[in-house]
Amino acid sequence: MRNFKLTLEYDGTDFHGWQRQPGLRTVQGTIEGALEEIVGRNVPVDGGGRTDAGVHAFGQVASVKAETRLETEEFHRALSANLPEDINVYDVEEAAAKFHARFSATSRRYVYYLRTETTAIWRRFAHVVTHPLDIARMQAAAGALVGQHDFSSFTPNRSIDTHPVCDVMEATVEDVDEVISVTLVANHFLHHMARVIVGTLIDVGRGKIAVEQIKAILSKKDRTAAGPTTPPNGLFLMEVRYDD
Amino acid sequence: MRNFKLTLEYDGTDFHGWQRQPGLRTVQGTIEGALEEIVGRNVPVDGGGRTDAGVHAFGQVASVKAETRLETEEFHRALSANLPEDINVYDVEEAAAKFHARFSATSRRYVYYLRTETTAIWRRFAHVVTHPLDIARMQAAAGALVGQHDFSSFTPNRSIDTHPVCDVMEATVEDVDEVISVTLVANHFLHHMARVIVGTLIDVGRGKIAVEQIKAILSKKDRTAAGPTTPPNGLFLMEVRYDD
Repeated sequence: MRNFKLTLEYDGTDFHGWQRQPGLRTVQGTIEGALEEIVGRNVPVDGGGRTDAGVHAFGQVASVKAETRLETEEFHRALSANLPEDINVYDVEEAAAKFHARFSATSRRYVYYLRTETTAIWRRFAHVVTHPLDIARMQAAAGALVGQHDFSSFTPNRSIDTHPVCDVMEATVEDVDEVISVTLVANHFLHHMARVIVGTLIDVGRGKIAVEQIKAILSKKDRTAAGPTTPPNGLFLMEVRYDD
Repeated sequence: MRNFKLTLEYDGTDFHGWQRQPGLRTVQGTIEGALEEIVGRNVPVDGGGRTDAGVHAFGQVASVKAETRLETEEFHRALSANLPEDINVYDVEEAAAKFHARFSATSRRYVYYLRTETTAIWRRFAHVVTHPLDIARMQAAAGALVGQHDFSSFTPNRSIDTHPVCDVMEATVEDVDEVISVTLVANHFLHHMARVIVGTLIDVGRGKIAVEQIKAILSKKDRTAAGPTTPPNGLFLMEVRYDD
């Protein structure tokens, strides 16, 4: 059995997220369908980072165990030929047998794009906030999230199977022209965590939450303490990192 | 009768171009429909630059003569409330009675975006060329288009009502990261002219047409002398200029 590592990009607008769901168009389900055309049987695809409905990826990673006599490059071409235009697998390589896109990953990097002007062109790829935002305060609040914290306040689902403590290695806010980007790197993310962090940072930028409150929000471990969940369209999974 | 100047942006992907056509979703038809909701009667909208099906605009200008007691700002808000999310009118101002978006315009600026890697995220907004392109040769060929020339070789429709001589004030090619942008400014453009110019420049970049041939292509006044028409998705109407 060969093990392939795929690196891919997708426009999440018209998908019900990454995860396979019966009867719904999902990224995982679409790739599995394409693989079945090639290898003649169902092949499960594991993703390095989950993306919800409407969330995009520039650097999703997936692992696939499959029997095929195709060379890696032919396998890549066959896969691309069977995928729709809103998924682009841009790299395929053969990986060690123990490589698993999700379990081998050491961190994920997400970027959320906010725009300060209403937009038609960027509406699929950015959330618009027309309220004035204090970027320096947002940067300070983001900095307060770095480190190991229990992020239960930043997820609607305190599931028993996911460890609520995340190690946030980077949380930064940049403002270039009319685009504000929030970059988040962590060992793992809880459900909706990136979007609740961004919603909270927007509230800080608008003056509804003080920078000093961030520590208290974390320690409450209560979803109602944090800000709202921003829409999915501004969020991109940029990279899944592995110890190589 | 008041005369309004609208400046607007649209994602052309899901429109059959700017121009009103019975039974088809067009930008002009959609704006006219929105205006009819507000002023209670059909109001013709004139556009500063035509965009074909699938072509986008960051800076289209339209003029509208209408009777309304709404203040300009209220009129703007009402219009925005009646438009779909792929059209964004970002400026409305009252103009002099003689202002006409098309006839008063002195030049139009278009930019065409090419990407050198297959892309899912940018597929609506860029044409992908994976052949290696010689940018310096493309720049030289673009430079040869500047000035007053008969552009009949660059349009499929040598119509009798459009003067085939265009004054090209700027034609430049830039290469930044994986994005090649072709900027064209002219007093007016013939049908498909921007896209045939880009198709011809791509052929120059690939070595299929020599830089020195550009003058001969112009003087032939024959569509078959130039390169292919590139797809509409990479083209943006960036600006319509007026002598203010």
